[in-house]
Amino acid sequence: MTAAAPPAPYGQTERTTPTRIRERASYDREVVHAILDAGYVCHLGFVRDGAPVVLPTLYGRVGDRLYVHGSTGSRPLRAAGRAEEEGMPVCLTVTHVDGLVLARSAFHHSLNYRSVVVHGSAHQVIEEAEKRAALDALVEQVTPGRSADCRPASAKELAATAVLRLDLAEVSAKVRTGGVNDEPEDLALPHWSGVVPVAPAYGTPIPDKDLAPGTPLPAYVTAL
Amino acid sequence: MTAAAPPAPYGQTERTTPTRIRERASYDREVVHAILDAGYVCHLGFVRDGAPVVLPTLYGRVGDRLYVHGSTGSRPLRAAGRAEEEGMPVCLTVTHVDGLVLARSAFHHSLNYRSVVVHGSAHQVIEEAEKRAALDALVEQVTPGRSADCRPASAKELAATAVLRLDLAEVSAKVRTGGVNDEPEDLALPHWSGVVPVAPAYGTPIPDKDLAPGTPLPAYVTAL
Repeated sequence: MTAAAPPAPYGQTERTTPTRIRERASYDREVVHAILDAGYVCHLGFVRDGAPVVLPTLYGRVGDRLYVHGSTGSRPLRAAGRAEEEGMPVCLTVTHVDGLVLARSAFHHSLNYRSVVVHGSAHQVIEEAEKRAALDALVEQVTPGRSADCRPASAKELAATAVLRLDLAEVSAKVRTGGVNDEPEDLALPHWSGVVPVAPAYGTPIPDKDLAPGTPLPAYVTAL
Repeated sequence: MTAAAPPAPYGQTERTTPTRIRERASYDREVVHAILDAGYVCHLGFVRDGAPVVLPTLYGRVGDRLYVHGSTGSRPLRAAGRAEEEGMPVCLTVTHVDGLVLARSAFHHSLNYRSVVVHGSAHQVIEEAEKRAALDALVEQVTPGRSADCRPASAKELAATAVLRLDLAEVSAKVRTGGVNDEPEDLALPHWSGVVPVAPAYGTPIPDKDLAPGTPLPAYVTAL
């Protein structure tokens, strides 16, 4: 039995090629997916009246597709509806901060981070089965296991929700790891230098005031 | 003695008025500043060849000005340089996630969050004193107290760094707090429901491999 070939990397384009520190960039599909799967909030950029707009929103990944959702009345979703033929040009960015890099020189201060930038055109999802799968993916992205443990959207809720699809095609990841990169002549300076790790932490869940006493905390919440 | 008047709120414009859930929006200067001051990573959007680009980057706040920086060779900074007369249209967004809101219905799942969206034109900072103050602010934003405890930028480093200024004028905050908003008829459903708090957590600092033994950890790092 031969080992499965690794998935092909994403194709590199001019706009996914960094102008500097190129060694931090990656087009590896597994690297990109792992960064996306570690988060659930993206920053979605679109152009409105010639000016950029960047809004935070939830996303869900299904294979090589990302989904975002919103009220059918929200600006990006209305714009995408108008641009249905060719889609709405968007840039979707996901960033995780992993550490503060405190160098001896102000200039070499940095962050350890992982980010993914997706360029492409977003299209409204019309077909009901895909829309339902996308909404499940959005819930799963935040809390894996939750989509099977809540009431699915009613027909009315589904109609009030717009979903956009963005294919993962023009994608790059950028990752900085490791320590401080000070100049050799700065190493003797007296300032403390190193990395302070950062990661999101989950607090004690606060049950809803109307929750029936004795309702157990699901394992997928405890797992956070 | 009369109490000082509260600072005037930011003026509301069409593009800082949400299309929905308007009660989550705020133009209060202190609310906006507090959200900005609680973070250090923003997502900066600009338009390139007609398409949106959203990149994560550090920012620093000085009063009613935000600063971002980068290599003089980076795309947004080169674009801002070319557009120096009228500035480069940008949208700068800062988001903090405070909690996962797990409702009984998929539809009412949400996040508790605080975000600020700034619309405006970014201008290159040319004057050296302002540029130095901006770089200090960038270091302070990440680790308050650090800018006085590291080597300031040399003339060469300063020349290699471009700084953009964005005035806080067309700005809005959006905040969701509180619990689950389920439909009354869903309250009897058996699913656990409530809020899982989220916040960034700092790990044990990792000293640089070349740090002189005995170098004390600064109070401003311990304070994280």
